[in-house]
Amino acid sequence: MDLTNVQHSPMGAHASFTLGHPGSNGGLGLGLAGPAGQNVYIAVEDAPGSGSFVALPFFATDDGDPLARFQGGEDGRTAESTGPLTALPADRVRRTLDAVTDRWTAGPLDFAVHSPLGALPEPPCPGDPDAGQRDADPELRLAVLPAVLAEFTVDNTSGTAPLRAFVGYAGSDPYSGMRHLQAPGLTGVGEGIRTAIVTDAPDARTAIGFDIPFLLGDGHSQPAGFGLGQTGLLVFEVPAGQRRTHRLAVCFHEADHVTAPERCRYLYNRYYADLDAVASAALGNFETLLARWRRAADDLGATSLSEERAWMLALAIRSYYGSSELLEDAEGRPVWVVNEGEFRMMNTLDLTVDQSFFEVRQHPWTLRNVVDRQLELYSYSDRYGISFTHDMGVANVWSPPGSSSYERPGLTDCFSYMTGEQLLNWVLAAAVYTGTGDIEWCTRRASALRDCLDSMLARDPGATGVQTVDSDRVAGGAEITTYDSLDTSLGQARSSTYMAVKGWAAYRWLERALRALGDTPAAEEARFRADRAVKTLTAAVGADGTLPALLDDPEGARIIPVVEGLALAHLTGTDIRSEPRLAAVLRDHLRAVLDSGRCRFDDGGWKLSQTSDNSWLSKIYLCQFAARALLGLPDDEDMAAADRAHAAWLRHPTESRWSWSDQMIAGVAAGSRYYPRGVTAVVWLSER
Amino acid sequence: MDLTNVQHSPMGAHASFTLGHPGSNGGLGLGLAGPAGQNVYIAVEDAPGSGSFVALPFFATDDGDPLARFQGGEDGRTAESTGPLTALPADRVRRTLDAVTDRWTAGPLDFAVHSPLGALPEPPCPGDPDAGQRDADPELRLAVLPAVLAEFTVDNTSGTAPLRAFVGYAGSDPYSGMRHLQAPGLTGVGEGIRTAIVTDAPDARTAIGFDIPFLLGDGHSQPAGFGLGQTGLLVFEVPAGQRRTHRLAVCFHEADHVTAPERCRYLYNRYYADLDAVASAALGNFETLLARWRRAADDLGATSLSEERAWMLALAIRSYYGSSELLEDAEGRPVWVVNEGEFRMMNTLDLTVDQSFFEVRQHPWTLRNVVDRQLELYSYSDRYGISFTHDMGVANVWSPPGSSSYERPGLTDCFSYMTGEQLLNWVLAAAVYTGTGDIEWCTRRASALRDCLDSMLARDPGATGVQTVDSDRVAGGAEITTYDSLDTSLGQARSSTYMAVKGWAAYRWLERALRALGDTPAAEEARFRADRAVKTLTAAVGADGTLPALLDDPEGARIIPVVEGLALAHLTGTDIRSEPRLAAVLRDHLRAVLDSGRCRFDDGGWKLSQTSDNSWLSKIYLCQFAARALLGLPDDEDMAAADRAHAAWLRHPTESRWSWSDQMIAGVAAGSRYYPRGVTAVVWLSER
Repeated sequence: MDLTNVQHSPMGAHASFTLGHPGSNGGLGLGLAGPAGQNVYIAVEDAPGSGSFVALPFFATDDGDPLARFQGGEDGRTAESTGPLTALPADRVRRTLDAVTDRWTAGPLDFAVHSPLGALPEPPCPGDPDAGQRDADPELRLAVLPAVLAEFTVDNTSGTAPLRAFVGYAGSDPYSGMRHLQAPGLTGVGEGIRTAIVTDAPDARTAIGFDIPFLLGDGHSQPAGFGLGQTGLLVFEVPAGQRRTHRLAVCFHEADHVTAPERCRYLYNRYYADLDAVASAALGNFETLLARWRRAADDLGATSLSEERAWMLALAIRSYYGSSELLEDAEGRPVWVVNEGEFRMMNTLDLTVDQSFFEVRQHPWTLRNVVDRQLELYSYSDRYGISFTHDMGVANVWSPPGSSSYERPGLTDCFSYMTGEQLLNWVLAAAVYTGTGDIEWCTRRASALRDCLDSMLARDPGATGVQTVDSDRVAGGAEITTYDSLDTSLGQARSSTYMAVKGWAAYRWLERALRALGDTPAAEEARFRADRAVKTLTAAVGADGTLPALLDDPEGARIIPVVEGLALAHLTGTDIRSEPRLAAVLRDHLRAVLDSGRCRFDDGGWKLSQTSDNSWLSKIYLCQFAARALLGLPDDEDMAAADRAHAAWLRHPTESRWSWSDQMIAGVAAGSRYYPRGVTAVVWLSER
Repeated sequence: MDLTNVQHSPMGAHASFTLGHPGSNGGLGLGLAGPAGQNVYIAVEDAPGSGSFVALPFFATDDGDPLARFQGGEDGRTAESTGPLTALPADRVRRTLDAVTDRWTAGPLDFAVHSPLGALPEPPCPGDPDAGQRDADPELRLAVLPAVLAEFTVDNTSGTAPLRAFVGYAGSDPYSGMRHLQAPGLTGVGEGIRTAIVTDAPDARTAIGFDIPFLLGDGHSQPAGFGLGQTGLLVFEVPAGQRRTHRLAVCFHEADHVTAPERCRYLYNRYYADLDAVASAALGNFETLLARWRRAADDLGATSLSEERAWMLALAIRSYYGSSELLEDAEGRPVWVVNEGEFRMMNTLDLTVDQSFFEVRQHPWTLRNVVDRQLELYSYSDRYGISFTHDMGVANVWSPPGSSSYERPGLTDCFSYMTGEQLLNWVLAAAVYTGTGDIEWCTRRASALRDCLDSMLARDPGATGVQTVDSDRVAGGAEITTYDSLDTSLGQARSSTYMAVKGWAAYRWLERALRALGDTPAAEEARFRADRAVKTLTAAVGADGTLPALLDDPEGARIIPVVEGLALAHLTGTDIRSEPRLAAVLRDHLRAVLDSGRCRFDDGGWKLSQTSDNSWLSKIYLCQFAARALLGLPDDEDMAAADRAHAAWLRHPTESRWSWSDQMIAGVAAGSRYYPRGVTAVVWLSER
């Protein structure tokens, strides 16, 4: 059984039912920076009437509750660390995962969690002419439902007496206690008004108590009102000779506004006033939702990928949605936010552009929503012209317009400004969105595009096609790139070949876009600089056929992501075959750094920089695509070995509790964990 | 300097700015079961321009932030555990506390926190004829304001350059980040939409960052938008030659409904829509509020008490308000809840009756509010008649009507039913409220009082005046008393002499109340049973002049709380002098168990039961009052030694982080911590 946590996440609820890693490492998390750290119980009696249970291993063995201190006094009872519950060993459980369904099977127990995938229609603004109709769209209502579904099957066909089973969790909200939910057609346990697990199984009963030994021992005869303790269970009994599948919904809700100082609330509040409404809708539409999500999983077509690739993509999709927030502002306008995983920075622009590969395929309006907000509120001008902030805030706190929560002057590494790179990222994100055919949108942004071009040109005073100056915002420091925790090989923006190819991609798209907008002189300037970038890069090839990471350090480090911009160029409509010189240089470079081992780890995984052990999976995914689909490197055993290595990093014995993570130091997740950016892997689906 | 945490708490906000215990043991807590566990910074530069600071010791020395891992990578910076901030040693700080003001003074630094005391007018229900007028009452609006005030004085009169100082905290909410607050006339730092510290000092500036070394080092030049890290500071600069007092408000807010399944929200939402509104009102009414609270402190008259007693009362009052919740239900009706400290059970009835000593003096309507709700929703009938549930729910989750979150069948100790005791508690709480002169209320409750009498009679089938049977609810177990974690000396309800005196007090009041209501036969029955109780108790006196804890175990343990009921009898209008036989028995008993040392700890503190080291301060306070004021024991050196011992328990080197605590095992807080019940000490004020 694979032991990686998966964020079983609704779309836009910043919520996850995280499960997969043993111990109290999962649970129902809403708005958190990591797994909720709760005990989750999925258990079945080991034999009818035995009173002892086996369970999936998602709980700590010492699950005492401070309230049990009530029974303390002098002869205090301490919570039993062992009890009637035994965790199943990994080798007795079979697990399968795709982008929608995560399933564990062990003997008579089968537990599957299903998470949303598929259409996310754009919610209307209150003033829109068709707002009423679109608001009533059942597809929209169901798409924003903050719940995931589960099926808990217990097989007692060979039993001669009833078999008991239960599902539940120990809440960890600091403000609320556990409670019973009861409404027509549903029974559940929840924590306060924020999370719950509910079922429509007619004979399910609920129990709340200190811990499992209590609930299976003394606690089983408790009256309905008993409510002490943080553990809540849904208990089922399957008659002899039967196999039953119990439908569950894992529900999330937050009614108040969640951001400050600008107030936004979760948009789902339009349709679901509280947890009970979410629970009803989830159970009431169980079949519809499940069928829709399974169809979306089929449509995704991940089965065309190798097993490792399909698995990484599935994991990444769920972490992406786990970080997503669909809000509406005080005027009811939709606001899409992707939080930056454990860091929770909001709509970090260097992630937005990478996630555009996924968003443009699934729900391009979210990309437009972010790109528009970035232009309207989170752009600024330095001495060279327009650029864009690193992010829009952190942990539901909006930064003042024109500033990020991240950037500070006087630095040369982490937390410095990303002025040049964010300029490219916004242009390329706008380009990706425009590729959906929304020419009207692009036309309205014509002056912004022109401003962006001017700003790019100004940062390249030598007309080399490459950014060679730093923003004055750095105030004595130096600009950095999205690779903020790497060494200068990828961390430095100025004269970076990684930036140069990304810039080339932006120029190529601007050339076409500005020409289409009728601004021929600007288009020509963009074309000229793109050509110059190619020329500059070509001229920088060293004696061994490789490109340096930094043009101003020809003998310095070699990096893989010099090819990364090709993927964005491809996505934004630039035919790589039309740029044979650049393609040849990059092909030779990439072959050389990979074949020589300079950019490989011992396990076959890709090492983005020769001089750093810090490698980023989201970026590796893009570079792999560029290598295979755009540069013609073979999808051979070396590629498969790399995939195995990368998947193994995500399956790390302890760090896989962080679900999908980006920054891997020598194969160990060390930052950017619980992270949304891995959906770059979706680009693999376009390889065929 | 005294190191006990104090819950600087608004009235009815379930919130505390907890401060006093060294380390990260205090902070801004809203809805929590204990101290927020935050670093709180109150610091002043040790010399003008030195760049190094001394601070009150309310922070941990290792205050790294996980976000600093951003800077990790391979050559990762780890957060400095030492920095430019040094905690003042306790012996350099002077501290004074009364019920309103807690003040620390050390060299040029003086920090005072002021918390509400005084009138809490009853908020109107929407339908009340004078609702509009009462809702507009500025006294009500200010009384429910969820904020405490502080004054931070920095003395730079002898300085020749500006002296810097700062105040701030590291937030711990799992869902939100720190933020800057800026509005006309106020500057502040807060966490999400729930907590903030604000000032009206015109030159204050704010800073947010990872930790103090960062904020005082690199971070000081950060741009306004920088928002990473959980530490927020308000920074002041005091010019040379000046002494400045900066006004602060520590604000709390929760807009959404907080309870389930019945939805209630904090009533202050009627007047304050958000944290900013709270902040504005607190700073805008600073002088008015402070003057009002100081006047209330004077009116309380605690200076007539010994220093130790005044200190314990002040501490207890603040913990009481820290547990209090003034809510309104979906119809806008006020709902008063006192949470049970660390256990957060709601309106636990055995606490309600003890806290009635305080509530009837400060705001009797809250007592009525609870007593009414208990009768309407949380009463039930067993085979003997009416009784009342132990509580109304836990951690903002209401129990189903007629049941508590606590009671379970089949037990003989903790978590068993308290049917008999809660019956007495409700009668006595109703009696205390009736003592305010609200005869109309009492008249409306006539049938309930009659039901209560019938239920008491039925539980005393032998007509001994004492409960001798257990409720059928215990289903084979045994009823317990509020002393649920003690041994049977106080834990058993049946045949308990503690219960007998409490029952006698209830009978005596019922006798008068029912007579006044015209129900002479019932009044006579009550009188008869009260007399029988006296007779039974008198007959139970042992050869050594003491009473056993349990009538059915004459040679068993001796306890102090057999006298406890006298305090309630006194409060409900029964003249102890009219019961000379009982008084004499109890006086002799108490003298004997105290003088013999059977009910004393080595330190002179009172040991409630001879057979248990578990002693409860709230109850000791009542028994001390009964001893001195009602039984004529002298207020001598033994009494003073006991006070010193009890205060020392609350000043325990580590457990004093729990502020006021009730259950002390051999002088160490071991349960019922962060607890509201200590306001029984207010009864001392009536000794003169």
